[in-house]
Amino acid sequence: MKISATEIYRSVDLIRRQSPVVHNITNYVVLNNTANALLAIGASPVMAHAEEEVEEMVNIASSLVINIGTLSEHWINSMLKAAHHARKKGIPVILDPVGAGATAYRTKTSRNLINKEPPSIIRGNASEIMALYDDKSKTKGVDSAASSETALDIARQVSEMHKCVVCVSGETDYIVDKEKIVKIKNGHPLMSRVTGLGCTASALCGAFAAVEKSAFVATACAMAVMGIAGEMAAEVAAGPGSLQTHFLDYLYRLSENDISKRLKIED
Amino acid sequence: MKISATEIYRSVDLIRRQSPVVHNITNYVVLNNTANALLAIGASPVMAHAEEEVEEMVNIASSLVINIGTLSEHWINSMLKAAHHARKKGIPVILDPVGAGATAYRTKTSRNLINKEPPSIIRGNASEIMALYDDKSKTKGVDSAASSETALDIARQVSEMHKCVVCVSGETDYIVDKEKIVKIKNGHPLMSRVTGLGCTASALCGAFAAVEKSAFVATACAMAVMGIAGEMAAEVAAGPGSLQTHFLDYLYRLSENDISKRLKIED
Amino acid sequence: MKISATEIYRSVDLIRRQSPVVHNITNYVVLNNTANALLAIGASPVMAHAEEEVEEMVNIASSLVINIGTLSEHWINSMLKAAHHARKKGIPVILDPVGAGATAYRTKTSRNLINKEPPSIIRGNASEIMALYDDKSKTKGVDSAASSETALDIARQVSEMHKCVVCVSGETDYIVDKEKIVKIKNGHPLMSRVTGLGCTASALCGAFAAVEKSAFVATACAMAVMGIAGEMAAEVAAGPGSLQTHFLDYLYRLSENDISKRLKIED
Repeated sequence: MKISATEIYRSVDLIRRQSPVVHNITNYVVLNNTANALLAIGASPVMAHAEEEVEEMVNIASSLVINIGTLSEHWINSMLKAAHHARKKGIPVILDPVGAGATAYRTKTSRNLINKEPPSIIRGNASEIMALYDDKSKTKGVDSAASSETALDIARQVSEMHKCVVCVSGETDYIVDKEKIVKIKNGHPLMSRVTGLGCTASALCGAFAAVEKSAFVATACAMAVMGIAGEMAAEVAAGPGSLQTHFLDYLYRLSENDISKRLKIED
Repeated sequence: MKISATEIYRSVDLIRRQSPVVHNITNYVVLNNTANALLAIGASPVMAHAEEEVEEMVNIASSLVINIGTLSEHWINSMLKAAHHARKKGIPVILDPVGAGATAYRTKTSRNLINKEPPSIIRGNASEIMALYDDKSKTKGVDSAASSETALDIARQVSEMHKCVVCVSGETDYIVDKEKIVKIKNGHPLMSRVTGLGCTASALCGAFAAVEKSAFVATACAMAVMGIAGEMAAEVAAGPGSLQTHFLDYLYRLSENDISKRLKIED
Repeated sequence: MKISATEIYRSVDLIRRQSPVVHNITNYVVLNNTANALLAIGASPVMAHAEEEVEEMVNIASSLVINIGTLSEHWINSMLKAAHHARKKGIPVILDPVGAGATAYRTKTSRNLINKEPPSIIRGNASEIMALYDDKSKTKGVDSAASSETALDIARQVSEMHKCVVCVSGETDYIVDKEKIVKIKNGHPLMSRVTGLGCTASALCGAFAAVEKSAFVATACAMAVMGIAGEMAAEVAAGPGSLQTHFLDYLYRLSENDISKRLKIED
């Protein structure tokens, strides 16, 4: 399935005009930079994790992003509660299973979330996606050890089983929805030297899913925009510090021309 | 009431020379950038939320900033305990009721804090300030939906009732102390695309209240400095990423000339 | 004891080639920027604090960094558990006793960690190191009030008593291992206007200790690299905002030539 630069830009433009509220229950490391990425693209981020208020926050949100990067027990309860409420309200839920496969706690929590409250979109690196299926693979920390290609089969099976879009991000991003697939080859290696850009990609999935009905198209838009703003930033950056700064600036200024000139998409 | 550029700069200079300890109990999203803003203006930030130590931290602090941006139950207990101790010691307490009106939990917590431990200064956007008074208004996430002007009446009433300074921030910042009022028209729209600049304004209120006896003047100084450094940063920024970086640089380098050239203050 | 620029660069190069996993249990303020510093120097940071998973994270890590900057009770349990497991596995443990001396809670927690699970390396400012020994000194917030020189005697005693390397950082960094000592005079005063650069130094100790057998040499490498990248950043920065950005860029690009030209080391 092909998605054009015009379609992607149309979604960027919708985010900028509608400024959808994206509710994030995410990890301590990336709370600041994912909120900034959502603001830069034009969305309205809300970060709230208290059990006492997650349902009400979901009520005013257009999507919910759950990221397990720094887990603890009461956060998991809030994640389940928020996801349950979001699904009841028909709001898309995005799951980022950070570090699944690295510890049993993260693997179990991810699988539990997926089984109890199947999300619309799951985004992770190859190791994380593979850990959702079985535990034969091993994660090196929260970075990806397995290759994206080998994770593709598992992504398809996870997608079929839980009826959700699965994105395996890496040098090539694979976005899978049962038999459908799209590949995005934007991005830059220096991006892996900035913490939380994977989490940022998941947050952007939340922004696009808030304005675009197809979760598959929304995920492709998010990964394309991520990769394009990232490579534009990397090309002018002196290192990972300035990459993060430029990345937010490019997200904010991204034009249809930037997308059409740079988009590397394949089906 | 008029406040001059000279008076504002005098306070900046006092902060730089005294480096007052500002104790923050704030949200996860902004812990890093508010600490950096306090360091950039010349203060000594301390971030501590454990019930076991908040009173001792208050003992070495010259002001206390409470921000409810990412609540949970044990943090609320610490906020109450710290505020109680600060008031007993005569140290100014600044409250930022982030997201009041967005959820009942935040509204209730804000009102509870104000009723039990009336702060010296409350700073919020129009929706948040209105939520302190009644719940007829609705907040869109943690951003402001209501106009600052409509919140002004309520700010006056909150100010009278709790004998504190209330700042309604927005395109124009209104600072109200019972019948006194001052308006500050500095700032730049791009600032709303950086997360936590409202929280930074509240943190700066803490720095100024630590060196300036009048909470009303301290709040005006903070909002003026915030707006001026923000507009200087926005004018040279390529987007919200570089705005945050330039903002800290300008806070650090702010001169009396910058303030006198740019200050837009009205009574 | 002399350590040469060549030796320091050899360790930088090892980090870049091995990308060791550094497990951090650290404070909310610096989670993002210490992860970024570790990525910039070439390591693989992992941030995890849940009791349920810290042992497993230690299993895949080459070093463990514990930082008490924003304490609460369940984090302390995780710190003890992780440190115990790391020592059993023979993985170096680095302790940053942020704010020890500022509150009894932090002093007690630091001493408790050191007594129960003696780390390989302790890094702190003069006040913090002095607080590990007795409570006659007073900390001004989490910044250093005591001079590094006066803390040197105490550092020696702490080092002897707990058989660990102690680093007292300041204008001159003193690295002590019983009778051995090395002094590093790199760095720039503007670095004290950026939050969490002390915590970053401790995180870098973790990266170097992961590739360098001698904890003493590893600490000296970390402090030298910290100071050199910091002064290079400060020389081109317009203030503390851009210093942080440049610092990460210079960490990433640091060459043997940068080190040999700038290194100020004394024994």
